[in-house]
Amino acid sequence: MPDDAADPDLRERIARGLAGLVPHNRALGLRLAELGPGTVTMVLPYAAELVGNPATGVLAGGAITALLDATCGSSVFAKLAVRMPIATLDLRIDYLRPARPGLDVHASAECFKVARHVAFVRARAFHPGAEDDLVAVANGTFMLFRDKAFGDKAR
Amino acid sequence: MPDDAADPDLRERIARGLAGLVPHNRALGLRLAELGPGTVTMVLPYAAELVGNPATGVLAGGAITALLDATCGSSVFAKLAVRMPIATLDLRIDYLRPARPGLDVHASAECFKVARHVAFVRARAFHPGAEDDLVAVANGTFMLFRDKAFGDKAR
Amino acid sequence: MPDDAADPDLRERIARGLAGLVPHNRALGLRLAELGPGTVTMVLPYAAELVGNPATGVLAGGAITALLDATCGSSVFAKLAVRMPIATLDLRIDYLRPARPGLDVHASAECFKVARHVAFVRARAFHPGAEDDLVAVANGTFMLFRDKAFGDKAR
Amino acid sequence: MPDDAADPDLRERIARGLAGLVPHNRALGLRLAELGPGTVTMVLPYAAELVGNPATGVLAGGAITALLDATCGSSVFAKLAVRMPIATLDLRIDYLRPARPGLDVHASAECFKVARHVAFVRARAFHPGAEDDLVAVANGTFMLFRDKAFGDKAR
Repeated sequence: MPDDAADPDLRERIARGLAGLVPHNRALGLRLAELGPGTVTMVLPYAAELVGNPATGVLAGGAITALLDATCGSSVFAKLAVRMPIATLDLRIDYLRPARPGLDVHASAECFKVARHVAFVRARAFHPGAEDDLVAVANGTFMLFRDKAFGDKAR
Repeated sequence: MPDDAADPDLRERIARGLAGLVPHNRALGLRLAELGPGTVTMVLPYAAELVGNPATGVLAGGAITALLDATCGSSVFAKLAVRMPIATLDLRIDYLRPARPGLDVHASAECFKVARHVAFVRARAFHPGAEDDLVAVANGTFMLFRDKAFGDKAR
Repeated sequence: MPDDAADPDLRERIARGLAGLVPHNRALGLRLAELGPGTVTMVLPYAAELVGNPATGVLAGGAITALLDATCGSSVFAKLAVRMPIATLDLRIDYLRPARPGLDVHASAECFKVARHVAFVRARAFHPGAEDDLVAVANGTFMLFRDKAFGDKAR
Repeated sequence: MPDDAADPDLRERIARGLAGLVPHNRALGLRLAELGPGTVTMVLPYAAELVGNPATGVLAGGAITALLDATCGSSVFAKLAVRMPIATLDLRIDYLRPARPGLDVHASAECFKVARHVAFVRARAFHPGAEDDLVAVANGTFMLFRDKAFGDKAR
């Protein structure tokens, strides 16, 4: 299975996707921090407007969900040597502890298995420097459409 | 277990939450369509700027994720007779088919079980008039903090 | 998509699978109760030897897991018009309440969506007569190997 | 949070649970291989009678499910310093590849987070010597009943 991201435009495409195409990720201020072969780290900057409960200052759970969702999908593109359409089959998130007020949340996703039709991803959200006290973990599976050019209709 | 939403301000709080506090839901244009005792329906209006792949016109998966996430959490508040802090424990989404280009997506969530510490939710996303051809389904569990006032720190 | 179980031997194959091939299902005493087009109901008979905690008489959670697992997979075969190999992609179970001591547990699974490569299943476990007070719910996805005869190696 | 298994009888209780109380685990031949503070490894010995499809010799998926289910629950007991009732809240399994015919399957579970009411577990199933080519991964959450003696009724 391909283990390297041969697509030279991947970083630019992911960054552009974050910055431009999906308004809710742009609204969250998500940005790409690291990109490896099958791995992606994104940052959700702490912002008062993302707080769910003003009494606690804790980021809304939905912001963590969106962060992990974006990171998981990007890691599949970072794993595939050839560009192809993908579609999320399922995504599961466990929320382990509330994010700490005032701190950014990072999410690292790894596409750890690619089969013929399906890719498997795991991810974790954490505060930098506190990787052992995870905020959330996620698992996802993605359909791969190997026989379609990227512009084709998936499914 | 309480089956009615005794909190008279619930609709206003949910609507305000959608419109104001969480920028990424506001960016998606999410709006509350129906609110019952333990049930919530929200609408994700189709918008060109939410399209993931311009060649297909299909809404980005992340928009469906955010729609279901917001709907699930709100259904717990709609089920509880007393206002209390909640926290998402886990959320799982199966994506059954791509959303149809040009059509709004609705999501209906039902909080179908409330135990002492945990509430269980299921939800479905669909195009109005095509409830049998679901776009996605979700299941979630939520911690309940019965002994805390809403402004207290949860967990 | 095929909605009927054209395979005339399906009931016999499922029953034989329960009774013969998989010793742990046989050890649990699982038996097939109902078989429809895409739906299956199985019974886990209450038995003292399946109790996890003698002080409570509650069935071990693992018995409920095995019941739901067996029911979900069978519902895919019950949905497909043509016999083909399948493989579980993922299975998720929410345990809503302990089973009641002394009572059988039934599980009904429905294969509610069949796409080209993937089938989606949902299931619920309950005591007969108390379908509104579910013991557990499950969701599963299954890979379909349409191009292989059943005896071929899957994947 | 407690990180050591202070209960001196834990190994015996887990072994006894595997060997005696739950007939379907006994039918599978599950045995305890390693027990650490919050970690458990169990073995599912390859056996012809556990094969789902005779043409391939691949173990039935249900055997892998039962292996992971048993391992996850045991890891919570291995993590808690004090014996208390627990109940599975949810369990999710991704099946990454078919088990190889003729080989035992090992499952290692780690209870990696204990909060007041909930414990979080992750597990992986693999063939010894091939830990990088996982057969399946699992995530589970468990309710903790700290205020109850073990013989009390949970929930």
